[in-house]
Amino acid sequence: MDFNIIRAARAILNVTDLEKSRDFYINGLGFIETESDGSQIFLRGLEEHCHHSLVLKKADAPSVEVMSYKVFSEADLDALAVFFSGRGYQTKWVEEGKQHAIGRALRVQDVSGLPLEFFAKMDAVERMLQRYDLYKGAKVQRIDHFNNTVPDVEKAYNFYINEMGFACSEYTASEDDKIWAAWLHRKPSVHDVAFMNGKGPRLHHIGFWLSDPMSIIQGCDVLASIGYSGNIERGPARHGLSNAFFLYLRDPDGHRIELYNGDYLTSDPDFKPVRWEINDKRRQTFWGAEAPDSWFNEASTVLDIHTGAQINTTDPKLKQHKPIFIT
Amino acid sequence: MDFNIIRAARAILNVTDLEKSRDFYINGLGFIETESDGSQIFLRGLEEHCHHSLVLKKADAPSVEVMSYKVFSEADLDALAVFFSGRGYQTKWVEEGKQHAIGRALRVQDVSGLPLEFFAKMDAVERMLQRYDLYKGAKVQRIDHFNNTVPDVEKAYNFYINEMGFACSEYTASEDDKIWAAWLHRKPSVHDVAFMNGKGPRLHHIGFWLSDPMSIIQGCDVLASIGYSGNIERGPARHGLSNAFFLYLRDPDGHRIELYNGDYLTSDPDFKPVRWEINDKRRQTFWGAEAPDSWFNEASTVLDIHTGAQINTTDPKLKQHKPIFIT
Amino acid sequence: MDFNIIRAARAILNVTDLEKSRDFYINGLGFIETESDGSQIFLRGLEEHCHHSLVLKKADAPSVEVMSYKVFSEADLDALAVFFSGRGYQTKWVEEGKQHAIGRALRVQDVSGLPLEFFAKMDAVERMLQRYDLYKGAKVQRIDHFNNTVPDVEKAYNFYINEMGFACSEYTASEDDKIWAAWLHRKPSVHDVAFMNGKGPRLHHIGFWLSDPMSIIQGCDVLASIGYSGNIERGPARHGLSNAFFLYLRDPDGHRIELYNGDYLTSDPDFKPVRWEINDKRRQTFWGAEAPDSWFNEASTVLDIHTGAQINTTDPKLKQHKPIFIT
Amino acid sequence: MDFNIIRAARAILNVTDLEKSRDFYINGLGFIETESDGSQIFLRGLEEHCHHSLVLKKADAPSVEVMSYKVFSEADLDALAVFFSGRGYQTKWVEEGKQHAIGRALRVQDVSGLPLEFFAKMDAVERMLQRYDLYKGAKVQRIDHFNNTVPDVEKAYNFYINEMGFACSEYTASEDDKIWAAWLHRKPSVHDVAFMNGKGPRLHHIGFWLSDPMSIIQGCDVLASIGYSGNIERGPARHGLSNAFFLYLRDPDGHRIELYNGDYLTSDPDFKPVRWEINDKRRQTFWGAEAPDSWFNEASTVLDIHTGAQINTTDPKLKQHKPIFIT
Repeated sequence: MDFNIIRAARAILNVTDLEKSRDFYINGLGFIETESDGSQIFLRGLEEHCHHSLVLKKADAPSVEVMSYKVFSEADLDALAVFFSGRGYQTKWVEEGKQHAIGRALRVQDVSGLPLEFFAKMDAVERMLQRYDLYKGAKVQRIDHFNNTVPDVEKAYNFYINEMGFACSEYTASEDDKIWAAWLHRKPSVHDVAFMNGKGPRLHHIGFWLSDPMSIIQGCDVLASIGYSGNIERGPARHGLSNAFFLYLRDPDGHRIELYNGDYLTSDPDFKPVRWEINDKRRQTFWGAEAPDSWFNEASTVLDIHTGAQINTTDPKLKQHKPIFIT
Repeated sequence: MDFNIIRAARAILNVTDLEKSRDFYINGLGFIETESDGSQIFLRGLEEHCHHSLVLKKADAPSVEVMSYKVFSEADLDALAVFFSGRGYQTKWVEEGKQHAIGRALRVQDVSGLPLEFFAKMDAVERMLQRYDLYKGAKVQRIDHFNNTVPDVEKAYNFYINEMGFACSEYTASEDDKIWAAWLHRKPSVHDVAFMNGKGPRLHHIGFWLSDPMSIIQGCDVLASIGYSGNIERGPARHGLSNAFFLYLRDPDGHRIELYNGDYLTSDPDFKPVRWEINDKRRQTFWGAEAPDSWFNEASTVLDIHTGAQINTTDPKLKQHKPIFIT
Repeated sequence: MDFNIIRAARAILNVTDLEKSRDFYINGLGFIETESDGSQIFLRGLEEHCHHSLVLKKADAPSVEVMSYKVFSEADLDALAVFFSGRGYQTKWVEEGKQHAIGRALRVQDVSGLPLEFFAKMDAVERMLQRYDLYKGAKVQRIDHFNNTVPDVEKAYNFYINEMGFACSEYTASEDDKIWAAWLHRKPSVHDVAFMNGKGPRLHHIGFWLSDPMSIIQGCDVLASIGYSGNIERGPARHGLSNAFFLYLRDPDGHRIELYNGDYLTSDPDFKPVRWEINDKRRQTFWGAEAPDSWFNEASTVLDIHTGAQINTTDPKLKQHKPIFIT
Repeated sequence: MDFNIIRAARAILNVTDLEKSRDFYINGLGFIETESDGSQIFLRGLEEHCHHSLVLKKADAPSVEVMSYKVFSEADLDALAVFFSGRGYQTKWVEEGKQHAIGRALRVQDVSGLPLEFFAKMDAVERMLQRYDLYKGAKVQRIDHFNNTVPDVEKAYNFYINEMGFACSEYTASEDDKIWAAWLHRKPSVHDVAFMNGKGPRLHHIGFWLSDPMSIIQGCDVLASIGYSGNIERGPARHGLSNAFFLYLRDPDGHRIELYNGDYLTSDPDFKPVRWEINDKRRQTFWGAEAPDSWFNEASTVLDIHTGAQINTTDPKLKQHKPIFIT
């Protein structure tokens, strides 16, 4: 690879009501509001020294503008532009100054049609890690990963692994030995991005990292206290895959957020990806509970980076079965 | 009252396979085995200085022999015998020496037909509270309560409150202002016994107290590791009613066990029972998740203290609705 | 006994700066402020349904006005008046209306000279137990106990056990088999009051109960974030005696507060008090760390209930040794 | 840099009694024993898929044989040999087969005289991450870092940063603006290695990572239960520097082990090292408690990689003051 992608870094979500979103993300999840105006809110987690990891933009309908990765240097952006153009992708530069608080950015629709963005520079702000007096709700610490449903997981897997320099930590194999889902990383955690077999391209959820399991319990308590018990979709429970203690929430627009604690170090080049059989009851939920239908069927619409139009979705190549055998 | 009931103290459960039960209760839930022989196992929690709080007896079919309460003194047993006889109940004495490790016991079928036992004396054993090296699984600390389904909750409520000296901490009111469920205590916690509207008399579950929320998380992890993920029926989550952080499990015979952490002090005579409307979404699960059908429909059969036969059940007086409106 | 003391219920502390105290107790410890005016602040814990468990009064010098116990009924107050008068104690009635939010109160200097108060009635207020959005700092749940240094522990022990109906959960025995310290309860926990051999009568600390160990960790983090790291005197650690996970703090006037989680049920009349040898290294701190000198030497001055003057202190009867052998 | 060091990977400690060490590390700290014979024990943490992260070797006196780093590939070993030789360091190859379970290794005494080792290959073993039934004691998850006392921190800092490709996350500045201590990393955590001003070269401690704060509390409880309360040297508390929740232990030979939970992601090249003034009270312990003298004065002797002799120590260049102003 001629470029160095550091990590999943931010997402831009279109939401229909900034006030409702602010209450959910700040009072419920514990994000810090770095800045806002009438059309957007910039949020960051408690340990983040960068300006934001989530942008909420006022829009008529909920959707995903981009998922952004941080790269090592400006030169990596140029290399990525060459890389994508050379493979026939139509890239788009967003010059510095066009987006608040970050440098120039390269956008592209990836091999599955997902709207990606790469940037090297973001404004630094005060890190609130040791301002425990400001901790609230679920005490979100930092962005962790994007999870997407795509119709052809193997195509996405091959592109990210073989061409973009990601490594695989864990994957789910279908009955006929195809990759049904895959967890891929650049930073040495379980993932920066995951792909699951399903109608897509769509964003299934954004994962945010919490520092300990009790933050999930406390997050649930606070969310319920302020009226968001209906937004708790699944969990808390432990994933077999990734070993994370998790909670899935739906934001006021239905965007799915995962609160995520656990993980493990995947720094070693000889780490062998963990294989899970699709029929292994403990894969989805180590403790055995079933995910609700909504978790399998619903996801966020993504947009075209050039036109802003909704990207059409395709049905998945593999059987998109909910593991109903889970007891 | 002429007698002083101290607290819920032990249960005797009939189980079909002692080895299976031993593994579940000891390796999964963390009970200490005080003693056992080929026909029964005596278990206690980590803080219990008494010989046992749970007896598992080998039997052909699962059932509940008795739920036992500890009373202050031997004189209280005599007073209870007079009390029940005077109201037409047919009591039964089990003389000291007939049951291992406890003194004489008075048995009676209560106002709902539930098999009760009262005793004043139990052998003392070493308390393992500070033997942290012996902690395992869910680290059960002590017995907390019995929860029963009965066809006429108000009848049970009136008898326990007005005649037996229990106090009510919380209750659920039906749409037409009847008591649909009630939580009653002698020790100053939320409950020693609860009654829920349902086919009965049946034991819905026995609650055991854990010292902190993480013990439930760790209990789930250990249970799943040793093959009991299918036995996790509901939770972990928080009850609105009682404020406890809970987990419901089914033992190898289907007896339901609640792991319970939270609670609050109910010592004050001016504590006003907390009323919950049956349609309040946060009553059952503060966080909003729905309980599975099995949790509403299934419970343990109880036995006749005289004949050992199964007690027939009756359908509930009030509508036994699962709150399906819970989102 | 002709009276029924329910539990340790409130303390009145004189403090020199209400604003400093408010910040410490509310933002640091997480108390709810029920009410206040220019001369006093009424505080309660998150689960308390009564008006307050702590009163901070503006004064020229820090001291303890009274430690108050709640009794079952008004009749118990009369019985206590008879009881103390009959033994030559000079009691004092504070009529209803004289103190905010509580009924009439009986005050007396106890056998060691400590200023006690008894009351049966306090205004009820909203319980904040499930308002998790209001939880902050150490999330104090409720008052638990008073710990006092007195020159003659056996005298105090005998009076509370034999005449006032308290039970002993644990005690420390000196090398010559005297009671060096004792933990006594009315509610079935480890204690409502403790006496330790030392210069006295003085209030060593007030213990407040937290719902889980992580609240102590989070309490430390918040206290440090807002400038109170210097107020953390000892811990967090686990007591051998009581098994509690604890933290000792000094409030802005030097009054000592214990944050306390753990405990166990002491409901059974056959519970045998746990004996600790004074030279057992694990008694004070199960994990072995030594308490600082200040913890052994400093305590709060108590006042005369009649004159408001400081009560003179006497040196202890037994050797007041800090267990220096603790490694 | 022509080589890629992945992370701190293992240490070899000489100990005087293998049985005593086994009990401490396995029953107390929760390590998994991969293998052992009469002269050495190989230990790994619960998430480690590699054969070991700690080797305990039977010896006449306690000391440190090497601290080992894993590199990306065999080629990196060759590059490191060239790198060190070119700068006048006398390296030593330990050929594959000479050490159990790892490939060939390059050893060298670093710029401060510390015995380093580099290797690329280690046998893979079963990861126990989801065998929660095997978790015990402090439940050590993985090795995290080495902390050393050296007489000239700036020399070490410059070598590791400028020549070996480490990045600095945090550092302590002396009153005259020298680097008094520094935390350096290759994996994107706070550190793989730290240097503190002090008599050296010596190993101050090895840090092992735990998955959550409660594992430290439970570790203390278990350690105390099995007789190791005297081995708890400092903590639990939170570091200002690194934000970790920590505990320091001395193993049966006096080697210091840090149990470490917390940390944050340091992946971004624009992360600006956090500067702490040496007189900042919250640097060492965010909560304000003072470290004991032993923590400042005692550390493990390191050996010469060629002769096996003890490396002589030198007094530090900067004032090695314990921050006695810490209250």
